[in-house]
Amino acid sequence: MKYIGIDVGGTNLKAGLVDESGLILASQKMKIAQVDDRDSLAWTLVALTQDLCRAAGVGLEQVASVGVGVPGTVDVRSGSILYTCNLPLQNVPLRKLFHRYLSIPLYIENDANCAALAEYFAGAGQGSKRFVTITLGTGIGAGIIHNGKIYHGSNGMAGEVGHMTILYQGEPCPCGRRGCWERYASASALKRQTARALEENPDSILAAVVAENGGRVSGQSAFIAMRRGDRVGEQVCRQYIDYLAAGIVNLVNIFQPDTLAIGGGVSNEDDRYLLQPLRKLVEQESLPCGRDKMTKIVKAELGARAGIIGAAFLGKNKRV
Amino acid sequence: MKYIGIDVGGTNLKAGLVDESGLILASQKMKIAQVDDRDSLAWTLVALTQDLCRAAGVGLEQVASVGVGVPGTVDVRSGSILYTCNLPLQNVPLRKLFHRYLSIPLYIENDANCAALAEYFAGAGQGSKRFVTITLGTGIGAGIIHNGKIYHGSNGMAGEVGHMTILYQGEPCPCGRRGCWERYASASALKRQTARALEENPDSILAAVVAENGGRVSGQSAFIAMRRGDRVGEQVCRQYIDYLAAGIVNLVNIFQPDTLAIGGGVSNEDDRYLLQPLRKLVEQESLPCGRDKMTKIVKAELGARAGIIGAAFLGKNKRV
Repeated sequence: MKYIGIDVGGTNLKAGLVDESGLILASQKMKIAQVDDRDSLAWTLVALTQDLCRAAGVGLEQVASVGVGVPGTVDVRSGSILYTCNLPLQNVPLRKLFHRYLSIPLYIENDANCAALAEYFAGAGQGSKRFVTITLGTGIGAGIIHNGKIYHGSNGMAGEVGHMTILYQGEPCPCGRRGCWERYASASALKRQTARALEENPDSILAAVVAENGGRVSGQSAFIAMRRGDRVGEQVCRQYIDYLAAGIVNLVNIFQPDTLAIGGGVSNEDDRYLLQPLRKLVEQESLPCGRDKMTKIVKAELGARAGIIGAAFLGKNKRV
Repeated sequence: MKYIGIDVGGTNLKAGLVDESGLILASQKMKIAQVDDRDSLAWTLVALTQDLCRAAGVGLEQVASVGVGVPGTVDVRSGSILYTCNLPLQNVPLRKLFHRYLSIPLYIENDANCAALAEYFAGAGQGSKRFVTITLGTGIGAGIIHNGKIYHGSNGMAGEVGHMTILYQGEPCPCGRRGCWERYASASALKRQTARALEENPDSILAAVVAENGGRVSGQSAFIAMRRGDRVGEQVCRQYIDYLAAGIVNLVNIFQPDTLAIGGGVSNEDDRYLLQPLRKLVEQESLPCGRDKMTKIVKAELGARAGIIGAAFLGKNKRV
């Protein structure tokens, strides 16, 4: 069987036809702005399903399910979008609307959970029984996979690890708390930390790196500067990795997963500069339980494809 | 059927014969110091089982299982104690040793998990599907019950929520980290905070309360002083509850349990002074998900009996 996966992002809507192994056979991308309202969203999903089948030469009857990943809170049982941060989609009974046009099973899930599911079935989490994926982006999303199933908590909102306070009375967070992990260890936080260091060190190699990038600070700037021998860049990276480790050790002490995968652009840094020092800190700080039983800290493998593949595999998960 | 539950503590070993509903039909207590080594521990468990049956007039054939709760790390599969903090018990194949004398099934579990299981079957967690218990004592223990089963993580050590950093670079913890939650929100932490306030305010009502208690600071001192109108006591309690809330909100955002129960001596304070302000903070700070879907914060109900009842129900859990 084949699966349709649709990754609804803040800017783009990406869709793919995926086979059992996680291979994307056909894909398509469009601006989310083209979708006006809930009905047009449902109809867009239908049109994408048909287009992808046509493009891949696959009959609709071969599609086991359509899965949709959404940046927000969903009701997985009813197949509805409850709330999204950055899109005008609230209380949308998507499954019901979709089934007016097509009778293929439709599943819906939070996007961080989709990413974790993709890694579980086709990436860094294959074979894991207690698996956690964190994605470093604007915030920090997480998906917790327990015996092959997404952990939803009692209300579908579990896994908001980005809003775990690691610094009591620290920086205010838009969520209303202070000192949330994502204020310190998301990709956006790294950029802010880099920008601050730049301001304080206008003559550093870091400043040259940013200038070469057209004056734009990116999540890579500090790492590039460090590799060129810059003390300022090194200090930014070291502090960032320490913040990242603080939250990861919290998760290890709470969940003791066998594998924890890190995704998002930042995770693409060379292992010597990110993963290796991070692993060392996690090993030093997490509770002792024998070296053979320690959580493996790995890179997520599927990159930007995880959204499509994970959404597609929502149906696969249901059939297991 | 009946169940034997044995709660191995740092000082005492408490044992009980428990019925299906969690009622303790007979109980016994002894100093753990009387147990010399691993063989004598196994033999003590056998003798206690026989004594309890005799005391309650119950035949051994009516005992479904013997459960043992241990303050440390265990291997639930093999029925072994791997490591305990405060007892000289390491790598003890308890089930194997016990079965030399008696063939009743023996289960072994971490004590915080036992407390959670007791509350799940016979206390504050009845009917809960996503249940978390925290116990405020020397540290903060936790048990996570997911669909009636204890969450162990990949290595049996999950749930060490006391060693979740809530204050990056905060107070050092014996575990090797800094700023662990239990350094701020355990019963011991409350006593330390009270002692500090006392030192700084020797003329406060708090000082009088402590003097009346023979000069000993307890986990109740600040609460008693607050109820008598003491500003110093009130400040200690308010700060303590704020620390407590910080970690609880972390757990709610991560797990979204339907129910979170708080045990340990501190939890016996009048609801107006502990649970009500705590609930308000948790409601304010945890991620929005509709008032009807919020985690219920409740008091654990079984008190000191939870250890025996939970250990006893290890066997009950296995049969479900």
